[in-house]
Amino acid sequence: MAAINETHDPALRSWVESANDPATDFPIQNLPFGVFSRAGGEPRVGVAIGDQILDVTACLEANLLESDAAFAAAEACRSTTLNALMAADRLSVSGLRLELSRLLRDEESGGPGARATAAVLVPMAEARMHVPADIGDYTDFYASIDHATNIGKMFRPDNPLLPNYRHVPIGYHGRASSIVASGASVRRPLGQTKPADAETPVFGPTKLLDYEAEVGFFVAGGNRRGEPIPIARAEDHIFGFCLVNDWSARDIQAWEYQPLGPFLAKNFATTVSPWVVTAEALAPFRVPARARGADEPAPLPYLFSPGNEEEGGLALTLDVLLLTERMRAESAEPFRVSRGSLADMYWTPAQMLAHHASNGCNLRPGDLLASGTVSGSSEDSRGCLMERTSRGANPVALPNGEERRFLQDGDEVVMRGCCRRIGFVTIGFGECRGIVEPAVERSH
Amino acid sequence: MAAINETHDPALRSWVESANDPATDFPIQNLPFGVFSRAGGEPRVGVAIGDQILDVTACLEANLLESDAAFAAAEACRSTTLNALMAADRLSVSGLRLELSRLLRDEESGGPGARATAAVLVPMAEARMHVPADIGDYTDFYASIDHATNIGKMFRPDNPLLPNYRHVPIGYHGRASSIVASGASVRRPLGQTKPADAETPVFGPTKLLDYEAEVGFFVAGGNRRGEPIPIARAEDHIFGFCLVNDWSARDIQAWEYQPLGPFLAKNFATTVSPWVVTAEALAPFRVPARARGADEPAPLPYLFSPGNEEEGGLALTLDVLLLTERMRAESAEPFRVSRGSLADMYWTPAQMLAHHASNGCNLRPGDLLASGTVSGSSEDSRGCLMERTSRGANPVALPNGEERRFLQDGDEVVMRGCCRRIGFVTIGFGECRGIVEPAVERSH
Repeated sequence: MAAINETHDPALRSWVESANDPATDFPIQNLPFGVFSRAGGEPRVGVAIGDQILDVTACLEANLLESDAAFAAAEACRSTTLNALMAADRLSVSGLRLELSRLLRDEESGGPGARATAAVLVPMAEARMHVPADIGDYTDFYASIDHATNIGKMFRPDNPLLPNYRHVPIGYHGRASSIVASGASVRRPLGQTKPADAETPVFGPTKLLDYEAEVGFFVAGGNRRGEPIPIARAEDHIFGFCLVNDWSARDIQAWEYQPLGPFLAKNFATTVSPWVVTAEALAPFRVPARARGADEPAPLPYLFSPGNEEEGGLALTLDVLLLTERMRAESAEPFRVSRGSLADMYWTPAQMLAHHASNGCNLRPGDLLASGTVSGSSEDSRGCLMERTSRGANPVALPNGEERRFLQDGDEVVMRGCCRRIGFVTIGFGECRGIVEPAVERSH
Repeated sequence: MAAINETHDPALRSWVESANDPATDFPIQNLPFGVFSRAGGEPRVGVAIGDQILDVTACLEANLLESDAAFAAAEACRSTTLNALMAADRLSVSGLRLELSRLLRDEESGGPGARATAAVLVPMAEARMHVPADIGDYTDFYASIDHATNIGKMFRPDNPLLPNYRHVPIGYHGRASSIVASGASVRRPLGQTKPADAETPVFGPTKLLDYEAEVGFFVAGGNRRGEPIPIARAEDHIFGFCLVNDWSARDIQAWEYQPLGPFLAKNFATTVSPWVVTAEALAPFRVPARARGADEPAPLPYLFSPGNEEEGGLALTLDVLLLTERMRAESAEPFRVSRGSLADMYWTPAQMLAHHASNGCNLRPGDLLASGTVSGSSEDSRGCLMERTSRGANPVALPNGEERRFLQDGDEVVMRGCCRRIGFVTIGFGECRGIVEPAVERSH
């Protein structure tokens, strides 16, 4: 489990000036990993610092990384994905972050290391970001009890929260092929729906297109098939975190989801923020797991560890903003529709991961697990429109007079996340954005 | 859509004598693709012929493959998986099969081509078979209406077949990481279950371990995200077929599956037969799609095509056999527990694939889709123990006096498949086997 160390020191400043801007998501205390490319170039592993990207392989080639401790992790960055880095020894990854932190510090300013490092910085404005890993399997959980209750009320009015919820970290397998990086547009899907007043289903564009604001985490290391990961070691298998938009078509979902769960309602696109904020960088923002009420069962032993109870949660604030076509034409800023916190989840990331592997299911480095919609108990913390508008009954009013029950073509959904704590520098996640395109022309 | 051509000629015989044995799964009319390795060697692409494997890359290197038409497909075989071959032009794959068929024919016997080809044969007994593709995503359907009804009765006595079933080819995403090739053992999973008489769930080894006999098909080519595949072109995206055992833990499934579907009950292991029988080789065994009864709805237009109605089904017989530890000690043969047919499915492979892509979900070459349990209307056609024994109420009697309600440690499940038709040579699929190992020792 990551402890607070010198890379978290709030006094650290970087000679990359933009990293010292209080508004940046990427101060020197963050140093998230991602995969970027420049026009015509191959994808490369980089680290975000302010509005710049440090090209890790270029650092290696310029002999800037010399620590033995960091060697394995640095070599693993010679790749077009983060999978090898996620498979590398965690101490080595930590060593690499420390070495990068030292290279980028203010006190190095003007020195030969800083001059050489400056030469391998790439402005973010010139880079295109990619899905950071080759995601072998993507699993989506359902860790917010508020979300499960709110959604359950709509799909099953008599039976909103199922009896298994407080015992089982409910999850399902999502689609890996359609995971895209922030910025990719999302076409409104076609699908079967059954209008309430119709005898038979119809096929056509979804009328209830929605987002779900989630937090994702990438698997570090892995386990062999047949060998569970004990909860006490689960965090060793969490490399880092990103934001996830689990786009959802609610009318398709309602008609298809029984008995095997969501399928085409979800697998047309999932957007991830491209920077993976390491579990190490987030060490200062750990909080206790959500307390169980007196009427709630204790986690079964395979989901319980003192460390998880004490600091298995993460105080990660997740905002959802909307920017409609008209707002863009009016040069308006995106409008915040909700703000939730990962700390409100019923299950922690470690519990989700330990549960996932409890039957011997093998997780691989680069696999993505996501929290499910991050919703809290208040209306403005509800992380999807289905909940936020009570299935369209209470539309969201936008500042320009528009309103939204569900997403319309041309709407852009923007998710932002950050971790704040007094005495520490705020760590951001960058954006997870996507714009809705009209449905494809139908050939039948 | 593949038409019957000279490679299907029942008069063809091979100079590989074992390919002419009426009992072989791999006559010269089959020529399935797979990935094999020899002790200490890298995986290579091969084609099964009798009890031998033709090493395709070695054929290339020996200049045995000279047709321009086959060039792209043959080059795509220089790989450790079939993904590139599955991405290759279908005409080229067909050209490669034709060229291999000609090389292996009896009339070539003694000629220079045959001699050179014989030099690159590898005995199956010396080879280890691998999962044939790097499976990006694995999707499991639920295409047998008999299975859906039988299982539905057990999970939902009042509501066995849900209202969507006859309209929607129900499917869900499975786990790619735990797909293993025939022969791999499967450890009995641990998991949460809730005994009927208990207030709260318990965690431990599943007591209701089951198999599901399915047919899988691999995606050829692919589609871009946002671009559906019309049903009339769906078969162009089916490379070939294999057998699938979707191991299932019924007690875990019953407790976890609502509302998001099966998860840990299924993702601990899925076994595939390693030879991919091409859609082309199966052309003679096509049959009409299952007829809809007068009280059943016609498929929606996106799931309807005249070609699919006429010959979208496949007369593939699927047997499940059991071999217990005691039977092995007694040197008994595996005992057949059920025999089903893919022709009984409510949905055809083309309908499953077109449905999958109908929302714009991108399929990639090498993705695996599976039919769901292949069951028919008779008791002995039920493709899982849950159905076959009515959840254990009517155990299967084995010839040595043993009986089975669910799988016990040491049981081996063997699936075999074949396509038969008068006037054609029978095409087999090889075996899909796996033995159940005891659950892992629990650390808590």
